[in-house]
Amino acid sequence: MVETVSGPDLSAALPARSVPAPVVARLPGYLQALESLRAGGRSTVSSEELAGMCAVGSAILRRDLSHLSAAGRRGVGYDCAGLAANIRSFLGLDRVRRIGIIGAGRLGSALADYAGIAASGFALAGVFDTSPRVVGTSVGGLTVSPMGDFAERSAEAGIELAVIAVPAPAAQSAADAAVAAGIRGILNFAPVVLTVPPAVHVRHVDLATELQVLAHYTAAEAREQQQ
Amino acid sequence: MVETVSGPDLSAALPARSVPAPVVARLPGYLQALESLRAGGRSTVSSEELAGMCAVGSAILRRDLSHLSAAGRRGVGYDCAGLAANIRSFLGLDRVRRIGIIGAGRLGSALADYAGIAASGFALAGVFDTSPRVVGTSVGGLTVSPMGDFAERSAEAGIELAVIAVPAPAAQSAADAAVAAGIRGILNFAPVVLTVPPAVHVRHVDLATELQVLAHYTAAEAREQQQ
Repeated sequence: MVETVSGPDLSAALPARSVPAPVVARLPGYLQALESLRAGGRSTVSSEELAGMCAVGSAILRRDLSHLSAAGRRGVGYDCAGLAANIRSFLGLDRVRRIGIIGAGRLGSALADYAGIAASGFALAGVFDTSPRVVGTSVGGLTVSPMGDFAERSAEAGIELAVIAVPAPAAQSAADAAVAAGIRGILNFAPVVLTVPPAVHVRHVDLATELQVLAHYTAAEAREQQQ
Repeated sequence: MVETVSGPDLSAALPARSVPAPVVARLPGYLQALESLRAGGRSTVSSEELAGMCAVGSAILRRDLSHLSAAGRRGVGYDCAGLAANIRSFLGLDRVRRIGIIGAGRLGSALADYAGIAASGFALAGVFDTSPRVVGTSVGGLTVSPMGDFAERSAEAGIELAVIAVPAPAAQSAADAAVAAGIRGILNFAPVVLTVPPAVHVRHVDLATELQVLAHYTAAEAREQQQ
């Protein structure tokens, strides 16, 4: 993940009371673990167990959660429901956030069908494509709209976040259309760095970047084994 | 991105001389920018310009690159070719790394066709699926192999990294098969936390996590505007 938020650096671009970006990035994992504990009927969890479920150290988990003023009680641990609600609120998920997917090709339709969208506090409210062959077909239970209708349809549907799943050459114009329609959060799956105004937040998921980071860790291990 | 590397915390799990995980995660972006400068015929770049291309602060960029002992020269900047080679070597990309994709559905085939794989120092060397309907078809220029042949085929093809693009219920068994075949790096697109031995590195790309982090930043902004 490459975070390309407004300004030169995330920590500099956000107000001083903000929580560090790596902490924010770990909160969804804690939330997911808490929800699975609740689904299994558990009401409390120790920091050690929760940390183990999320593959982080328990000291890091306690420090992360201290940003939310979510203190566990010694000998009792964290209240699963209360902590989940706390994280959900912090992440802005105390109401359902509506998303639109731009690009109804294989990647876009795979994302549209991902059942976790609803479970994670989001609702798929629009799918858009420029191709007349795709417009009007059904993707993710919705009828694909022409990209030219993005502003009108996204306003009608209350779309706040856009997921860009188009080929690289089409990604900037998709982002421009989303920004022009008032979208302030973009999740970009296209392998290109988007140029957006400072007020718009972009997260970039890039296969090449992920593979390169993974390559570093596996290569480093191979080097150590040779020594 | 959730990094679930061996042990409780990445920084704790790696030797002391290791570079911090956030620095490693930014290096592919620097490499991409340097390659695009080189493609445009540029031989040197200032830290300010390179930082601007990567949407980070120039102080952060200089500090990051100091881990590679890649010093820019005052008034000249960084040598694009030299710095790119330096990063490439650090990331373990001084040789082509072979990857296998497990899951030849929409997501898997979209990933297989991603042209950036080769450009980023990787070669797609296998595509695998459990479904007899998919095995034998062509995906990403390769014939899809049955998952039962993973160990044999990956050894033949020299596959070092596996990309998991199967539905959540099938992801753990896909990971188990990859680990059993000696794979030490897994990029997981399935929305489930994988259990792997400590020596295996997993990076997890999860739509819900990315959306939730994005939701935090856009919600925080909305709150500030209300104040």
